[in-house]
Amino acid sequence: MTSYTPTQLFETLRSFDTEIGLVGPDELANRDPGEHPQNFEAGVMAFPATTEAVARLVSWCGRENVAIVPQGGRTGLVGGNISRPGELIISTARLSAIDMLDPAERTAVAQAGVTLQALQEAAGRHGLTTGVDLPSRGTATIGGMVSTNAGGILAFRNGVMRHQVLGLEAVMPNGEIFRDLTRVVKVSAGPDLKHLFIGGEGAFGIVTRVALKLESRRAARATALIGVANAEAALSVIGHFRDLPFALLEGAELMWQRFIRDSAETFGLDLGWLEPETAAVLLIEVSAESVAVATEALESGLEELWGPAGLTGGIVAQSLDQARRFWQLREESHFIYRFHPGAPSFDVSVPPRHLDDYVAGLRARLKTIDPAYDAYVYGHIADGNLHLSIANVDTSAADHLLPIEDAVYTGVTETGGSFSAEHGVGIEKRHAYQTFCHPEKQALARQLKALLDPKGLFNPGKVPF
Amino acid sequence: MTSYTPTQLFETLRSFDTEIGLVGPDELANRDPGEHPQNFEAGVMAFPATTEAVARLVSWCGRENVAIVPQGGRTGLVGGNISRPGELIISTARLSAIDMLDPAERTAVAQAGVTLQALQEAAGRHGLTTGVDLPSRGTATIGGMVSTNAGGILAFRNGVMRHQVLGLEAVMPNGEIFRDLTRVVKVSAGPDLKHLFIGGEGAFGIVTRVALKLESRRAARATALIGVANAEAALSVIGHFRDLPFALLEGAELMWQRFIRDSAETFGLDLGWLEPETAAVLLIEVSAESVAVATEALESGLEELWGPAGLTGGIVAQSLDQARRFWQLREESHFIYRFHPGAPSFDVSVPPRHLDDYVAGLRARLKTIDPAYDAYVYGHIADGNLHLSIANVDTSAADHLLPIEDAVYTGVTETGGSFSAEHGVGIEKRHAYQTFCHPEKQALARQLKALLDPKGLFNPGKVPF
Repeated sequence: MTSYTPTQLFETLRSFDTEIGLVGPDELANRDPGEHPQNFEAGVMAFPATTEAVARLVSWCGRENVAIVPQGGRTGLVGGNISRPGELIISTARLSAIDMLDPAERTAVAQAGVTLQALQEAAGRHGLTTGVDLPSRGTATIGGMVSTNAGGILAFRNGVMRHQVLGLEAVMPNGEIFRDLTRVVKVSAGPDLKHLFIGGEGAFGIVTRVALKLESRRAARATALIGVANAEAALSVIGHFRDLPFALLEGAELMWQRFIRDSAETFGLDLGWLEPETAAVLLIEVSAESVAVATEALESGLEELWGPAGLTGGIVAQSLDQARRFWQLREESHFIYRFHPGAPSFDVSVPPRHLDDYVAGLRARLKTIDPAYDAYVYGHIADGNLHLSIANVDTSAADHLLPIEDAVYTGVTETGGSFSAEHGVGIEKRHAYQTFCHPEKQALARQLKALLDPKGLFNPGKVPF
Repeated sequence: MTSYTPTQLFETLRSFDTEIGLVGPDELANRDPGEHPQNFEAGVMAFPATTEAVARLVSWCGRENVAIVPQGGRTGLVGGNISRPGELIISTARLSAIDMLDPAERTAVAQAGVTLQALQEAAGRHGLTTGVDLPSRGTATIGGMVSTNAGGILAFRNGVMRHQVLGLEAVMPNGEIFRDLTRVVKVSAGPDLKHLFIGGEGAFGIVTRVALKLESRRAARATALIGVANAEAALSVIGHFRDLPFALLEGAELMWQRFIRDSAETFGLDLGWLEPETAAVLLIEVSAESVAVATEALESGLEELWGPAGLTGGIVAQSLDQARRFWQLREESHFIYRFHPGAPSFDVSVPPRHLDDYVAGLRARLKTIDPAYDAYVYGHIADGNLHLSIANVDTSAADHLLPIEDAVYTGVTETGGSFSAEHGVGIEKRHAYQTFCHPEKQALARQLKALLDPKGLFNPGKVPF
């Protein structure tokens, strides 16, 4: 599509616009490419500091037929950031200002390159926080989280990024700036086209600025790990705490046996309190007006639920440090790859009523492929979002992935779930998109892509465009 | 565009599909057209009972170049349901089933013609309710509420319809069915095109089925009316109750002086407890684990805030009946038209920090047009959604509306608000749309309309398509 080598592109852009920071192939080769080793293959990265500079770059690329890969924190897990020689990476790193933050309105306007943690810290100074939280908060950017419609820990209560975005600015493939920076939740003023950019994975535009809702942050918390027989039991615990009038559910993460066992071993947590055959462990956190009230809510709730929900052991964190260590068990899930390098990993949504059937069926389907296969299963139980990594797979074998994908995706769409819950499509879920996304919706998406980006220059090869 | 008279259309459709209920010009002339007298001008209404029947009708209309106006409860306030001779009204009245409702999942799948109240009653049997509530609940349909992205009373907490929709099915102008009925909140599986239909006002498709989140319903409540000096004082009261750990804010409606005075007179509420010069009255409702806790939370909160927020009188409802009468003051706003028939009415969102300046500026701008002009101002204060009706306007005078629109919309967009908060564009806000919607967004909306509905047969003349 382009006639530029990386070096030619670097040299040409240096003379085109001296205001735009640029990094070329030599320097980029020494930087950390983030979650995917091919993220920096393009070899040239631009750092525009304003929306207008992004627009100038996009217009130039349009004239020159240079494809563009936008990058934020490069924490994406499905290859949505990979780039190839001849393409230009546009980084949002210099779009790093929080333009405004209003504690009374509970709104913030942040440029795309602001990290989640930076926004959380700014909001935290006013007793507020972001409605979406996720483990990669220190690196993930607001723009990237909008582009992938990130979900995380609080989606059962606050929704996902799509539900937190009040307004948005983006540069479209034609170089024009889409401006829709309302800061109000109620807008019924014609088609709400900003949703094309939310979860659009850069196919329709580069998000440059976002107006977000903020939520109250309650510091007084209590945290527990509870042994449960299945997802249904975990959901009954969650149902109790979701309805409490004097405490708020802040987290509900379920870790099935293989995951919690290997995680506890990795991070040195003694599971002696847990009956050995327990199917899963629920990490639950509630907040209240004081730590004492939160702890009392948690302890009395669990006592009440013990028999009815068939709970099989549990510990309540006795300190903030212990609570942090409970969360580490769940959040630092990279330990899986130490046990099983390259383990195929998935991220599905399953309506909660179907979770137990789904997990049992998945394990059975994996065994029919290879009796050694097993799944690490963990995730955001209250909204049905499961993360899965498949153990004991010989990833060097050709075609090892297709039967596993079949096993993982069976029944997900039919029961009202999604083959990608919060990671997006990128390059890794393209086959699933083509298989499970309704054909009419795929056709419409292709038409929109042709309309907005007729040359196909925006993040080519992702979603499947 | 069409060669059919209403009678010809009626006769032709009767023979085309005997399964589809039809009402012709004679019978329709005797029915209540709903909020707008021109809703039934088309004279022919079809009542398909299945999505497939809607699709058959749409395909037939496409072949015959017959334009379509979808109608739900006809409670829309901006003329989005008006129809003209030669067009076909497609009513969702027979799409009236609740397909499923899962209390553990807190989800429901409802056909488009289900009324909000019917869904609330079904959910109420499980201690749940819809996340969106509004005064026309007995008539407004889920399909219509999705198509206009309705907001209502709880948007400050739960968002608007867009934030409550998990999945959606719609018939597109090409007669194909768009199916995307996930029941999970986390979906990042390619462009989320269902948002074209949410708030699309029927321009891109007819919504036939919706999967919705449900929310906990807490019956134990306390309700008060409080005199406040301005929106800022009301927002400080709301801020207190939004952060309470043992009570939940269920409603925060502000009624400025002219509105509360005339409403109290209409519904026979004694305002003797209110200092006569008080600028506005805040209706506030909280829920808790018991009525006693809710009442205590409300009373102690107001006591604490009395001095700091400059409150000037208040009454706490002593019974459910009194609470209902407080809500009547706010919800039965049609009384305005008894005082001022045809009063021009508006529905704007203003970021809360700008509310007082906006209301003061509006009053001043109205006085410069005509010293007799005044505004009824009331609305959902926590999310900045104001409803406005202009008093003392000679609506028979030519061109009376344009200067009033100028006065109402001045500053709304610039401060991050919206010219239409929850009523949509329809025909009445077309001028505002053309003036205040960003040109790039308008251009993109037109391109999408041309792509999806090249003949312009879906709800023509609305939004401005």
